[in-house]
Amino acid sequence: MKLIDFGVREDEKKYIQEWSKTNNIEVKIVTDLLTPETVKMAQGYDGIVAYQQLPYDEKIFDTMNEFGIHVLSLRNVGVDNVPFEALKRNDIRLTNVPSYSPEAIAEYSVAGLMALLRNFKHMIRKVDQHDFRWAPDIGRELNQLTVGVAGTGRIGRAAIKIYQGFGAKVIAYDKFHNPEIEKQGLYVDDLDTLLKESDVVTLHIPSLGKGHTVINKDTIAEMKDNAIVVNSARGDLINTEELYDAVANGKLYGAVLDVYENEVGVFNTDLSDQEFSDKLLERVIKSNRIILTPHIAFYTTKAVKNMATVSLNSMVSELENGSSENEINLDK
Amino acid sequence: MKLIDFGVREDEKKYIQEWSKTNNIEVKIVTDLLTPETVKMAQGYDGIVAYQQLPYDEKIFDTMNEFGIHVLSLRNVGVDNVPFEALKRNDIRLTNVPSYSPEAIAEYSVAGLMALLRNFKHMIRKVDQHDFRWAPDIGRELNQLTVGVAGTGRIGRAAIKIYQGFGAKVIAYDKFHNPEIEKQGLYVDDLDTLLKESDVVTLHIPSLGKGHTVINKDTIAEMKDNAIVVNSARGDLINTEELYDAVANGKLYGAVLDVYENEVGVFNTDLSDQEFSDKLLERVIKSNRIILTPHIAFYTTKAVKNMATVSLNSMVSELENGSSENEINLDK
Repeated sequence: MKLIDFGVREDEKKYIQEWSKTNNIEVKIVTDLLTPETVKMAQGYDGIVAYQQLPYDEKIFDTMNEFGIHVLSLRNVGVDNVPFEALKRNDIRLTNVPSYSPEAIAEYSVAGLMALLRNFKHMIRKVDQHDFRWAPDIGRELNQLTVGVAGTGRIGRAAIKIYQGFGAKVIAYDKFHNPEIEKQGLYVDDLDTLLKESDVVTLHIPSLGKGHTVINKDTIAEMKDNAIVVNSARGDLINTEELYDAVANGKLYGAVLDVYENEVGVFNTDLSDQEFSDKLLERVIKSNRIILTPHIAFYTTKAVKNMATVSLNSMVSELENGSSENEINLDK
Repeated sequence: MKLIDFGVREDEKKYIQEWSKTNNIEVKIVTDLLTPETVKMAQGYDGIVAYQQLPYDEKIFDTMNEFGIHVLSLRNVGVDNVPFEALKRNDIRLTNVPSYSPEAIAEYSVAGLMALLRNFKHMIRKVDQHDFRWAPDIGRELNQLTVGVAGTGRIGRAAIKIYQGFGAKVIAYDKFHNPEIEKQGLYVDDLDTLLKESDVVTLHIPSLGKGHTVINKDTIAEMKDNAIVVNSARGDLINTEELYDAVANGKLYGAVLDVYENEVGVFNTDLSDQEFSDKLLERVIKSNRIILTPHIAFYTTKAVKNMATVSLNSMVSELENGSSENEINLDK
């Protein structure tokens, strides 16, 4: 068996190489993305692994079929950029990695919140200027706060365990009740109640669809004074302009944002050498009370290792058994 | 009863005012430190509350005696700067606040560690420059690490609870075994074992005395590659130069320092408008892998409230009953 892995980042290489050695299977590592041109490198291989945010061109799959390659294993979760019809036409099966590390996201949320509660952003900037004064950056203790966890899927539940270790009071909301969280009596009746009763609102829910936000000027008005918003889920859950205003005018204490409604084309890109056109994002970055990171919550050694190895394991299962637990149903 | 509170910072005022209202006792708030001059403001009051890092002059206590004031309540723990003989001569009793908030220090340590594991210092600096790239700042998950807690007093034990909530493996060392930590089987035999087996070493112990450090080039050599040091205890526990070198040369992953061996005269001071002479501290500040804060771990709203109110409660107890649980034995 010979496999080829496209679009490999520097930080992924060592996990792929380790897997290759452990499993005694050849894996060719390619840094290029998978395109109608680069797919030609796959001739002679048994399966293709890939990860990219750009769309996969239909022609790729015609070529795969020609080469007798009938499995594409993605190293990530999203399959929106894959043309299912082209796969079906060429008899190609698709797998993804449905969960890299829920703890990576949960821990990020807590890391961001703690950094905000201790004013690290302002402190780092002050100390850089040799201003070592404490005031006015007095810290707040998490054990004194009520944390409202919106969404009790794998990530939300991992976050709840951590917050309970701090001794914070945890309340939770989800349309679908998890039995364990139910047993603990953490659920409130609706999202409004969660927003009203929390000192910290942390979002672990999917998008609500275009134009529907959870955090906007109307919901912020219902929230406690000095409350905090943490979002490592989806940028479009928040009206960022209205959140920014609420932090700037002191209604909210601050926010932690790892996602942003207009992040595409900005995050994971170096824009340091050009004019920066997003004036709202610029204000967010300047604020000492908003911690803004470029969608890094998932980005841990454990998650990257899982992305690299789970995709390869799925490929092996597909090639040996004709199926795998992470195979995508192309008819859905 | 009329009390007077010296050296009050802006962030302390509201807690003193709240206490005054709740207890219906007049408290005069003075921002000046307590000196032979300012003590004259205390005439007509029944007790003096104070907090300062400068020494208390002996003459203060002669004047207190003249005014018939026989209790000094400190808002902090340290009494090194109080001349006990002058108090005894003037029949003045002294109280302190032995513990403001162990959780404040414990939570700081975790906040600093999480910020380091997620490379927040570098991320904030990169995003400030509009560089939104993830690499090379891949995060590490705490749930994958062994945390060695040196010192299992109130702060160390509070930290252990938090680390366990993250699902980290916790080991501990202390000369004196706490029954609860013993029952959990967390103790290793000696500090060397703790240093050798930990991915994160977090210090919650007192100073070892002049010239004795826990973290220095010899002990660092024994530590795991990529280990992390967290110090919110005492600056002189670490040879900072040798720690810096180990981070710079990649032996250690990084460090979190809220204390520093040469912090006096620097921390809680604004030095932004003058030449900065501490070249080692400058290198530490510049490092993306060392989070340096100016002794802020204790500085939370809960701790400041406790400092303000516990000192006043002790004063009331002293004036009403002639004693309090926080009275210092001046003959020790």
